Amino acid sequence: MFIRNCWYLAGHSGEIAAGAPLARRLLDEPVVLWRTGAGELVALLDRCSHRMAPLSKGRQEGDTLRCMYHGLRFDSRGACVEAPCQSGIPSNLRVRSFPVVERTGLIWIWMGEAALADPDEVPDFDWLFSPDWTGEPAYMHYEANFELVRDNILDLSHVAFVHGQTLASSDAAATIPPELERFPWGLRLTNWHPNEPLPPHYEGIAPFTGPIDRWFVATAFAKGNVAVIEAGSAPAGEGVILVEAAVDTASGREVASHAAGVSAEYPRLANTLRHCILHVLTPETENSTHYFYNLRRRFALGDEALTRTLAERFETAFLEDKVMIEAQARNIDPDAHMQVIRSDAALLHMRRLTRKMIEQENGSRSGASTRQPKHALA
Amino acid sequence: MFIRNCWYLAGHSGEIAAGAPLARRLLDEPVVLWRTGAGELVALLDRCSHRMAPLSKGRQEGDTLRCMYHGLRFDSRGACVEAPCQSGIPSNLRVRSFPVVERTGLIWIWMGEAALADPDEVPDFDWLFSPDWTGEPAYMHYEANFELVRDNILDLSHVAFVHGQTLASSDAAATIPPELERFPWGLRLTNWHPNEPLPPHYEGIAPFTGPIDRWFVATAFAKGNVAVIEAGSAPAGEGVILVEAAVDTASGREVASHAAGVSAEYPRLANTLRHCILHVLTPETENSTHYFYNLRRRFALGDEALTRTLAERFETAFLEDKVMIEAQARNIDPDAHMQVIRSDAALLHMRRLTRKMIEQENGSRSGASTRQPKHALA
Amino acid sequence: MFIRNCWYLAGHSGEIAAGAPLARRLLDEPVVLWRTGAGELVALLDRCSHRMAPLSKGRQEGDTLRCMYHGLRFDSRGACVEAPCQSGIPSNLRVRSFPVVERTGLIWIWMGEAALADPDEVPDFDWLFSPDWTGEPAYMHYEANFELVRDNILDLSHVAFVHGQTLASSDAAATIPPELERFPWGLRLTNWHPNEPLPPHYEGIAPFTGPIDRWFVATAFAKGNVAVIEAGSAPAGEGVILVEAAVDTASGREVASHAAGVSAEYPRLANTLRHCILHVLTPETENSTHYFYNLRRRFALGDEALTRTLAERFETAFLEDKVMIEAQARNIDPDAHMQVIRSDAALLHMRRLTRKMIEQENGSRSGASTRQPKHALA
Repeated sequence: MFIRNCWYLAGHSGEIAAGAPLARRLLDEPVVLWRTGAGELVALLDRCSHRMAPLSKGRQEGDTLRCMYHGLRFDSRGACVEAPCQSGIPSNLRVRSFPVVERTGLIWIWMGEAALADPDEVPDFDWLFSPDWTGEPAYMHYEANFELVRDNILDLSHVAFVHGQTLASSDAAATIPPELERFPWGLRLTNWHPNEPLPPHYEGIAPFTGPIDRWFVATAFAKGNVAVIEAGSAPAGEGVILVEAAVDTASGREVASHAAGVSAEYPRLANTLRHCILHVLTPETENSTHYFYNLRRRFALGDEALTRTLAERFETAFLEDKVMIEAQARNIDPDAHMQVIRSDAALLHMRRLTRKMIEQENGSRSGASTRQPKHALA
Repeated sequence: MFIRNCWYLAGHSGEIAAGAPLARRLLDEPVVLWRTGAGELVALLDRCSHRMAPLSKGRQEGDTLRCMYHGLRFDSRGACVEAPCQSGIPSNLRVRSFPVVERTGLIWIWMGEAALADPDEVPDFDWLFSPDWTGEPAYMHYEANFELVRDNILDLSHVAFVHGQTLASSDAAATIPPELERFPWGLRLTNWHPNEPLPPHYEGIAPFTGPIDRWFVATAFAKGNVAVIEAGSAPAGEGVILVEAAVDTASGREVASHAAGVSAEYPRLANTLRHCILHVLTPETENSTHYFYNLRRRFALGDEALTRTLAERFETAFLEDKVMIEAQARNIDPDAHMQVIRSDAALLHMRRLTRKMIEQENGSRSGASTRQPKHALA
Repeated sequence: MFIRNCWYLAGHSGEIAAGAPLARRLLDEPVVLWRTGAGELVALLDRCSHRMAPLSKGRQEGDTLRCMYHGLRFDSRGACVEAPCQSGIPSNLRVRSFPVVERTGLIWIWMGEAALADPDEVPDFDWLFSPDWTGEPAYMHYEANFELVRDNILDLSHVAFVHGQTLASSDAAATIPPELERFPWGLRLTNWHPNEPLPPHYEGIAPFTGPIDRWFVATAFAKGNVAVIEAGSAPAGEGVILVEAAVDTASGREVASHAAGVSAEYPRLANTLRHCILHVLTPETENSTHYFYNLRRRFALGDEALTRTLAERFETAFLEDKVMIEAQARNIDPDAHMQVIRSDAALLHMRRLTRKMIEQENGSRSGASTRQPKHALA
């Protein structure tokens, strides 16, 4: 079960080159992503209307995509514009097209009711992809339901155990409770870990040694499974939390970043390492997930070697998550209950929101899938 | 769902050597094929009556096959002739045997009601395996329902797209409609493509360059999924269609080849490259198919190097089909409809015939399997 | 369907090293086996009570095991003793623990109702692991239901066919019927094969050539799927069957070995090669089985090279079984019947006992699983 009427991340811009259609399963439907001659992005159902061959095995011809089984040719809206064996082209040869919006290197797709797709609702990360920040997009595939992956992001207590040799320097992530703010669209988690040793991950990178103040602010949205984690480190006593992901708390819409309004604060941040990681989870199937992330930083902007080093170190850490979560996914007993502890508060809020949004989409039908792990509330 | 009361191709003669039983799943049943001491072919259910071990792991002893689990020994009709641990042999130890006919290198098997098996109904390809023709048998395995593979053969418009770098020289296969004759047993499709460039496949082989006249005549039978494609090429203006596969249009029985009656035509064909490809599809399971083919030619009969070259070139082309059809099979949405275009006429006729024959076998029960792709008639 | 209230073999002692928890699926449940600081064996459900991550990916800390996802820590009885993110620990965080008994290198586990677990019912093989015998434990994994593997052990007629090049020297195993004694807990099969050639397996090992007398006495228990096969070989005319596995025929409990009482017989056995193989089958799932065996011998006790040679030869022979049984498992038609012959008497008795014990455990519910092969009684 998925929320359907929202924007999901379909890919990063660099994944779809001219003339090279990309096949990707999204929300359990096959999608082909390709570009018109002018470079405009197109998303069609990756299944020819005729014999169901994948259009992603097709050949791009100008602004059209030709199925290479029997040669039917489709335009960027999915209309069939040629059927080689006949002159007339009945309208039932159309294939479904999906609204897409490409912005700041992110390709957003609407898999729900097309009439409801509003480009203005596309998450706005212009601030994060402005020249103030640098970094690279990355991708990981998960053999696990998207909620298991999201759970991980929303309970940072795991950092102390899963990432003991990489991201963590102590058990602070597990023992210092975050502040949780619940909203009708998602949540915000604020973690403040003062006076910590330098974690292995920052060795040779940070211009200071330790102890340090660390903080993580996660702003997460149920729609599209988007989470923005703003993290910072500074010499102990100098740390200050500054949040740039600004959200209208009533609507859950990202608004212009705080950054402009708080720029007066920046001098105080001169000695601070600030990261912002955009995590987006798009269901591939009920049991597998596309995990797109963008690791951005607000320091040493021109240092490309550092970009590579950080990409490798974070990939190492995120593979630690993947090993654990895929093992968890294989290990789930659908007849048993997960016992709830305090640190589950955030993930449970998000699971409830998701269930509620699915139910609202489906009207009176229940959104509760039998595949969901059951939770025992203590 | 399969037609059961007809002859299916179980293999090529060269596949079953003396003393080496072959296991092959046919119509979703395990079959062991082996030869008696005199070389006579035997087909038994490949499942010992005792503990269900595969007899194909057994040891041939004279005209019998011994199960190598507990030693039961069976004769060529499936009767148990020895049970080492006891003296009496109850008749319930018999394993099912299947009627088989071996002829011109082809092994035909009857998987239906044994009493209905009539060796006279075995397809007659004596003419094709006469010394007038030469070539080699070949085999390909498909992870796809047999009808998806047959569909491909019956809509040659795919040649222009799937085989653009091999068999096709233009889009003629897609744009020139074939003549379709429908019969109660199958169909005939006649394609005439005059004045074409020489296709890549014939480079270095044809004694002429181009332009050429090309033709393809496909005679296809619902029973046994047999299709004979007679193809020819000649310098433009010299082409002439000559069909040797002769069928009694009422019964669908192959009759003596036309060849004798039309031999007066042969002088006109001196400069013609004539191929005949016998395609036979035998279901392995609902979702996989044995594809047997014989690539025969009526020119350069003694040239064995040419036989090898042609075998390789056609294998390359047929692998292009396999890639597309297996991708199609994985991509089918059982809840959606395939939209029908003009070139589907032949395959739809054959699908309807097949459905009807299955229904007739099953009496009042419907032969429509839910696994069949649905078709939307325009 | 399994008998649950009995001791099953979970592993051999050498498999579980200090600080290295072992994951093993037993009776279709994930189990983690580990040792406390003092080396005591612990078996817990391998699924954290919190988010169901496998505890076998955890870290052992003294006498506790920490889940390395969110850091919950469990003691050897499964009680949660730490939840890093909170102070109180609700009792519902407990994970299930299983009674285990480690004895003579064998780790026995009780997967049923814990209150019924009686350590005195653990099979007693002290005699076999006494200094009178030597040998090594071994393991093989089967993709087959445990009863198919047990069937093989209980019908030694297969030796003549499956092991023709290894264990067998003639068809005696198939043609000389064993004596079968049926008990409410299992059975005993006594095979006596006088005046046989030396089998390939004993070449270069036996201090005699042939002919020889051979015997096999199999004592098998329905509970835990345990079978003890005592085998011997001696120069023809000198063979004598001596059984050391002593069982109280009413209760099925192993009692002190006969050995003490029959030691007066030993001088007669000076020229005899005596083996005892302990076979234990523990269901992994309905369709896969852990096969543990101990190949013990009562000759050349100090010869370690011989231990290796025998281990290799028996592994070769047991792989012959595995190939056949896994082929059988894949080949079973659940809608057909296995036809019964005389040599099935032992395995049928054991299958009936097993069915009856399962039914007794389940009260009025039928213990017959639809996955069981059906038998046609002649």
